[in-house]
Amino acid sequence: MPQYNPPIRDMQFLLYEVLDAVPTLQGLPAHADIDADTLNAVLVEGGKFAAEVLTPINLPGDAEGCHLDKTTHAVTAPQGFRQAYAHYVEGGWPALSADPAYGGQGLPLVLNQCFYEMLNSANQAWAMYPGLSHGAYEALHAHGTAEQKALYLPRLTSGQWTGTMCLTEPHCGTDLGLLRSKAEPIIGGAADGSWRLTGQKIFISAGEHDLAENIMHLVLARLPDAPAGSKGISLFIVPKFLVNPDGSLGARNGFFCSALEHKMGIHGNATCQIMLDGAVGSLVGQPNKGLAAMFVMMNAARLGVGNQSLGLTEVAYQNAVAYAKDRIQMRALSGPKAPDKAADPIIVHPDVRKMLLTARAYAEGARALLTYTALQLDVLVSTDDADARKDADDLVSLLTPIIKAFVTDNGWTATSACQQVFGGHGYIHEWGMEQFVRDARINMIYEGTNTIQSLDLLGRKVLGDNGAKLKKFGRLIAEFVEEEGTSEAMQEFINPLADLGDKVTKLTTELGMKAFGNADEVGAAAVDYLRVVGHLCFAYFFARMAKVALDKQHSGDAFYTAKLHTARFYFAKLLPETAMLIRTARAGLTPLMAMDEALF
Amino acid sequence: MPQYNPPIRDMQFLLYEVLDAVPTLQGLPAHADIDADTLNAVLVEGGKFAAEVLTPINLPGDAEGCHLDKTTHAVTAPQGFRQAYAHYVEGGWPALSADPAYGGQGLPLVLNQCFYEMLNSANQAWAMYPGLSHGAYEALHAHGTAEQKALYLPRLTSGQWTGTMCLTEPHCGTDLGLLRSKAEPIIGGAADGSWRLTGQKIFISAGEHDLAENIMHLVLARLPDAPAGSKGISLFIVPKFLVNPDGSLGARNGFFCSALEHKMGIHGNATCQIMLDGAVGSLVGQPNKGLAAMFVMMNAARLGVGNQSLGLTEVAYQNAVAYAKDRIQMRALSGPKAPDKAADPIIVHPDVRKMLLTARAYAEGARALLTYTALQLDVLVSTDDADARKDADDLVSLLTPIIKAFVTDNGWTATSACQQVFGGHGYIHEWGMEQFVRDARINMIYEGTNTIQSLDLLGRKVLGDNGAKLKKFGRLIAEFVEEEGTSEAMQEFINPLADLGDKVTKLTTELGMKAFGNADEVGAAAVDYLRVVGHLCFAYFFARMAKVALDKQHSGDAFYTAKLHTARFYFAKLLPETAMLIRTARAGLTPLMAMDEALF
Repeated sequence: MPQYNPPIRDMQFLLYEVLDAVPTLQGLPAHADIDADTLNAVLVEGGKFAAEVLTPINLPGDAEGCHLDKTTHAVTAPQGFRQAYAHYVEGGWPALSADPAYGGQGLPLVLNQCFYEMLNSANQAWAMYPGLSHGAYEALHAHGTAEQKALYLPRLTSGQWTGTMCLTEPHCGTDLGLLRSKAEPIIGGAADGSWRLTGQKIFISAGEHDLAENIMHLVLARLPDAPAGSKGISLFIVPKFLVNPDGSLGARNGFFCSALEHKMGIHGNATCQIMLDGAVGSLVGQPNKGLAAMFVMMNAARLGVGNQSLGLTEVAYQNAVAYAKDRIQMRALSGPKAPDKAADPIIVHPDVRKMLLTARAYAEGARALLTYTALQLDVLVSTDDADARKDADDLVSLLTPIIKAFVTDNGWTATSACQQVFGGHGYIHEWGMEQFVRDARINMIYEGTNTIQSLDLLGRKVLGDNGAKLKKFGRLIAEFVEEEGTSEAMQEFINPLADLGDKVTKLTTELGMKAFGNADEVGAAAVDYLRVVGHLCFAYFFARMAKVALDKQHSGDAFYTAKLHTARFYFAKLLPETAMLIRTARAGLTPLMAMDEALF
Repeated sequence: MPQYNPPIRDMQFLLYEVLDAVPTLQGLPAHADIDADTLNAVLVEGGKFAAEVLTPINLPGDAEGCHLDKTTHAVTAPQGFRQAYAHYVEGGWPALSADPAYGGQGLPLVLNQCFYEMLNSANQAWAMYPGLSHGAYEALHAHGTAEQKALYLPRLTSGQWTGTMCLTEPHCGTDLGLLRSKAEPIIGGAADGSWRLTGQKIFISAGEHDLAENIMHLVLARLPDAPAGSKGISLFIVPKFLVNPDGSLGARNGFFCSALEHKMGIHGNATCQIMLDGAVGSLVGQPNKGLAAMFVMMNAARLGVGNQSLGLTEVAYQNAVAYAKDRIQMRALSGPKAPDKAADPIIVHPDVRKMLLTARAYAEGARALLTYTALQLDVLVSTDDADARKDADDLVSLLTPIIKAFVTDNGWTATSACQQVFGGHGYIHEWGMEQFVRDARINMIYEGTNTIQSLDLLGRKVLGDNGAKLKKFGRLIAEFVEEEGTSEAMQEFINPLADLGDKVTKLTTELGMKAFGNADEVGAAAVDYLRVVGHLCFAYFFARMAKVALDKQHSGDAFYTAKLHTARFYFAKLLPETAMLIRTARAGLTPLMAMDEALF
């Protein structure tokens, strides 16, 4: 069974040594009193919860899956999930970075993101139950009425209730403009002013379960006479049990889980088909503006999905390292390294190291990018400086699709590489590696497929504002290159970073010109382009981490030596993917569209 | 549920139009009378069997899995598997390319390889039951005594009995030199001259089942006082039921299936742990030469594994195309393509096409490479010209690790891309796409991991003979480049092919020099190197296919147009991976080994 050791030192390295998180946070009114001791205490306790409570129920939860009682439509999560959630609620974890006005602890979002990395490493399927609640919380916090907030937010903050997002229908996922669920006004009676919803939703993660006493569904549906397409969609809150004005639970609402999906992975999370059979809901935000309100949840969820793959990459790496040090098989080609044993541990083999270092570098790069972005999110929601807010907003907006797609594609590569380290045992359930791969696969799909992310990046975020956001990020890189340009020791990192920056500028201009001629050129290049920009981000953060490590490499702490070696591995073995990507992006649309549809 | 349409026209294109298989085969004494009609009849009937009998039981077989009765140790395959096998035996399929001396039909191996592609597309888990029998047949045919052949081969040929390979033990898979199973001579009594085997074997595919009345296990074990390591391993045939001299079944032999593995995929195939508890076996080949005898099976099995991923790539592609034409979602960025519908079919989106074409090109490239190699195998086993045999042997030897590793890595990429086309539905069991991905994953691991294949290629097959085999294949490319060098229409294919050929030559020389200094440099570069040479093979065969297609593109048959577009896609979008691979291969050993083991 896989083990998990929370990478707290790595998180501290980023927070305190690379990103100077404490002074940044202290500059925000909400976090003026924050200090490293507080952050450290949460990291340590959160890590314990993840490793001790969630890791042991991950593999059994995958084998057991969720259960639907077809008579009562009740769903039971795997054994231990309910108890772990009770433990989580008792510990006050749902409140960590929630608004103190509703019972939250008001700690920084960047801390919550570190906490969630650990939950995801320990048990992605479990972490999705509370994870979805954050999305519901965010949407209500941003768009709810005062009454809705007072009624729902304290109970989401305490974890007493959980939340979901109900978007997808059988015929539409990406294209929500096609959705058909309907909401009709209720006039008179107890529910006067509310809406009655009918329709079918699918792929509702954590859509029904036995972990909490009530579930708040945030549901997209159409009002009568709403405009067609995406401009006619409204957002509703639809509780599993109706809520009395005093917060006590009323009758069971008119919808039910009609089936659980049989999935490739995340078996411990209940993925529900939900039939809305005249369910009572109240409107959240403005009529027909539901998609915009839902995007508040969606953007947070996209960062959360990147974090899921970071978590899986880290835990897969840790277990593959342990196996590679333990398993003896063959001799090193250059001669025995453990002559006292019958064979050498497989970590002596260069390609085993390549697989391990691929996962390690992808975890470290992703953690840096995610931690940086979460810190920008803290600035965005807490600063009172309008310019700083705009900058943070632009950077988060630019980096969100990169985190969602680049980190989850890398997570697929990394977990599969770690599985390969185990040879045949990697294919067997009891070792846990194949579960990481299966769980990682969904992250490339949900909350907008990675293709959709790439269109968002190239089409909307980059070309949509003539590269302004990208230039903002590019200035950070240029400043760093300028600062470190005279350091001889930094040349090995600065030169490829600067070179890739130039290539991205050139490629962006080229694609912009092409898109001017044919908008489909965006779709032809976007996936390659996103990976190139992802590498630019990673190269930037690896260079920043290398700078800190170079400064401290003679401190006697081998931690910094390891950081340097990982950075060097990244530049030597992973960054060269850009040589391929730039070529395939430039190859453009014709090779994709030349063949008539009928000939496929 | 996935559908399957056997790609017979594609097979015929390769056999008759690209590779001139009929005259090549007719030049071999064993196949002097072969004709296209015979081949076509088998392809059509084989395709029917695959699509009509095996496809319908693939998805249910995955859901059901195999069953072990812990009391009797009997294993039952999923519903329908036994009946399908009976159907297969009745049809005479096991005998297709088997030796007529033992009841075989003596048809070419290349035909059997086309047949197996279809079985693998339809149901990889099922196809492994008869597939393993071929390996046992080959090893006995090459190394058995006259008595062993007479007793066992006719019943393997008829399919009345099946076979397995029992190599792996809990502590050794790659490194068979470590294996511990023992064989002790039986002196006196009924089994005089036989051996009594004890030990534990794991990962025995088709190791126990209810499809056939008897199972021939080919088992590696050590004789008393055998030398340590791989030079002290012998091969035994150990039947499930002892076989009387007249071929009738005797007592149940002393071994049993102690457990079935819970695997990521190929659930329909029983992967057994086998306890040898004094099982009676007879020696196959010379004492202590078992590994060499087993490699006869292994090499055939490696080609078979490449074929499994070809089959999965093809069937995943077909189903993804059907979905992409049917599913409507969003509009093309360049404006509506199906204005009469609420949205466009997703095949209008360039990245969806990229995913489809990736799978299509990987299937077509793999089919060409495999068909060519199987034809060389026919020459190897049937020619009476010693030079032709040596050439064929060299080519098969060179191409085997490439087929095993390159085609299975591509199969993982391709099935995952096809899964992605389905969005969220791709993650759900009932659509069948996630099963293709899970099934494809084992192909990168078993019969020698893909890392082992790459070491075999670079270390043994290429550097081991100073590049002689590689040069032999290079000469075929050089001749083709020379022939087509003056054709203007062929420049787009010939130029990148010739360019890549030059790069491979240069890279090989560089790596040879480096390996001279440190043998571990082979291990550092081998995986990248294998993929570069894999692309060289694909580029060669795509250029050859393009030549035929160019000659016939105005024939009115759009089949040739599609071939041309696929080749162009390959050169534009897949071949550029070599730009990355050559860089990472050159980056060498240091970035992998610099970090101390303790710092991982």
